[in-house]
Amino acid sequence: MKESKYEAAGVKYDMLDPFKLACQAAARETLDHLAVHGWTEVAKTRGESAYVVDTGEGYLAHVEEALGTKSAIADAVYRLTGQSFYRNVAIDDVSTIVNDLCTTGALPAIVGMYMAVGDTAYLADGVRCRDLAEGFAEGCRRAGAVWAGGETQVLKDVVCPDAVVLGGSAIGRIARREHRVSGNVQPGDAIVCLASSGIQTNGATLCRAIAARVEGGYQARLSDKRTFGEALLDASVIYVPFVRACQRANIALHYLVHLTGHGWRKLMRLEEPFVYRVDKLPEPQPVFRFIQQAERMDDAEAYATFNMGVGFAAYVAERDAEACAAAGRRAGLDAWVAGTVRKEGDRKAVDLTPLGLSYGGESLQIR
Amino acid sequence: MKESKYEAAGVKYDMLDPFKLACQAAARETLDHLAVHGWTEVAKTRGESAYVVDTGEGYLAHVEEALGTKSAIADAVYRLTGQSFYRNVAIDDVSTIVNDLCTTGALPAIVGMYMAVGDTAYLADGVRCRDLAEGFAEGCRRAGAVWAGGETQVLKDVVCPDAVVLGGSAIGRIARREHRVSGNVQPGDAIVCLASSGIQTNGATLCRAIAARVEGGYQARLSDKRTFGEALLDASVIYVPFVRACQRANIALHYLVHLTGHGWRKLMRLEEPFVYRVDKLPEPQPVFRFIQQAERMDDAEAYATFNMGVGFAAYVAERDAEACAAAGRRAGLDAWVAGTVRKEGDRKAVDLTPLGLSYGGESLQIR
Repeated sequence: MKESKYEAAGVKYDMLDPFKLACQAAARETLDHLAVHGWTEVAKTRGESAYVVDTGEGYLAHVEEALGTKSAIADAVYRLTGQSFYRNVAIDDVSTIVNDLCTTGALPAIVGMYMAVGDTAYLADGVRCRDLAEGFAEGCRRAGAVWAGGETQVLKDVVCPDAVVLGGSAIGRIARREHRVSGNVQPGDAIVCLASSGIQTNGATLCRAIAARVEGGYQARLSDKRTFGEALLDASVIYVPFVRACQRANIALHYLVHLTGHGWRKLMRLEEPFVYRVDKLPEPQPVFRFIQQAERMDDAEAYATFNMGVGFAAYVAERDAEACAAAGRRAGLDAWVAGTVRKEGDRKAVDLTPLGLSYGGESLQIR
Repeated sequence: MKESKYEAAGVKYDMLDPFKLACQAAARETLDHLAVHGWTEVAKTRGESAYVVDTGEGYLAHVEEALGTKSAIADAVYRLTGQSFYRNVAIDDVSTIVNDLCTTGALPAIVGMYMAVGDTAYLADGVRCRDLAEGFAEGCRRAGAVWAGGETQVLKDVVCPDAVVLGGSAIGRIARREHRVSGNVQPGDAIVCLASSGIQTNGATLCRAIAARVEGGYQARLSDKRTFGEALLDASVIYVPFVRACQRANIALHYLVHLTGHGWRKLMRLEEPFVYRVDKLPEPQPVFRFIQQAERMDDAEAYATFNMGVGFAAYVAERDAEACAAAGRRAGLDAWVAGTVRKEGDRKAVDLTPLGLSYGGESLQIR
């Protein structure tokens, strides 16, 4: 794939990757220190969205995540309009952590928050502080986890004066061994999709570049009359209740994907070559059409970059497909059976049939 | 206390605190979500350096922490001299996480790393990448934990272009219930001190301000002929091996303090009023004398701000004092019996008798 619009906006995955590879190699060398605690790493957990260990009594999962630059959109809109979306942004921060965690089948029990500002004045704003605090708590409630604490730091000359870094971590518990999601996908499995609320936590850097360029900026009107800024700042969906509902309904989840960076290409996260054929796509939210228009971005690039209306996907046996989607709806989410996992020899691809789009395995290098 | 030099350098604790209080209040409201997982919060864990839960089968501890601006010193020295101290800085990052965690008696089993840069170019430097990766791994080895993974992000316009934010989290395990450090300090307990390597992870903002002002900056020579920059960048001591050695020797640790922000005032972290009388202080490293001279900072302020040669303290029964210090030395650390915890009615204070200094309880508001 040639350099995408996303990369041109300042996020160069190529340069990130050598560092990530160095970290992965060095990290693997520390594995023998886990055994001392009587814990063992589960097979193939490295490279997945969260780290899972077997404690002997069950599985624990851990994840360290962060929001990216979506907070900068809230900062800009707040400066521009006085409207605070910090509650949503704090929910977003929790969502990045727990949505990754629950792809392992773990339900988050403990969430810790990290926040860094460049200037103490950032925290002198009472509305912002209240909304951030309430949003973290609300995110934890939606995830069914306790907010355990965290750390707030002032990093002068490291974080920009009007900006904030939001991150955090979680510990999750896999209550029954059979609830662990191990990637045992089979040809013929169904793909169940769960709707997103909009861009969620992905693509913020590019959206900021668009706002800086289009007429009206964050105040530009979308086709539904909402502003670009407020649409970007809809709180992310937290998918933990879906995973919990599936577990309660004894639906075996073969694999779960949190659609973030790399958009729909993320569907082929597993190493094994499968073809993920998606036949039912939702109509993307107006914010995506606005972005596409502003960037002159075709569907091929848009679906490779953004979630385009789907934030989470589950692969389950065909016989469980409707029950899985129903579990999602019981959890209050929009869910539907969207397609099928197929075996086509060595071909690895995501085929979005309603759009005639196909992404080959070579377009996703994330391990 | 009037505004300290530390606060004048840009870290205003007063403004941070209302936000922290709002977070603490909102976080407490999420507690009922822990019970669903069959876990319970241990009494008084909020306000301590790490969060501890009882899983029924034992205790788990969690901490989310970050390094602060010490990385900015490494960045400046690297730009100035080409000398990379990133390995040390990565060890520092692990130390902030695990030294806090082990104050609960938990030994870290899993460590996750967080890193955010403002520009992808930061990671294009091979030496920097290699040293950061190796340092994280080395920190985990010293802590006896597995490096589980983490997250690296490019946060354009949020993190300054030449800077990095380093943080992370850990899960710790308290193998035997009696190893949990609960704060059951008794009058007559001994204070065992463990040496630091220098400023460790505390006071970096002020040190950067000094470097910007003094002749020679980071190249200024200390009394031992080392440069200011290299002395600031000595890797922090990781105190986990001390806690492990005490547990192996069946020494009951009544309370543990990681001396970071607030310097020696941190000794009176517990709410209950005690007087912590320290009779044996080490000679602080030359870097502290240099800082004091540059800032015209008297001992009263220096010991209220910096660790001044002691990075960790343990309170144990008087009969265990020598064995505790010996355990520290067996772990390869410099440790000694330094003083006594006393009950003097309602008086809460840290008395540093060799210096004739005393800090009252009102000078430490951290809960």
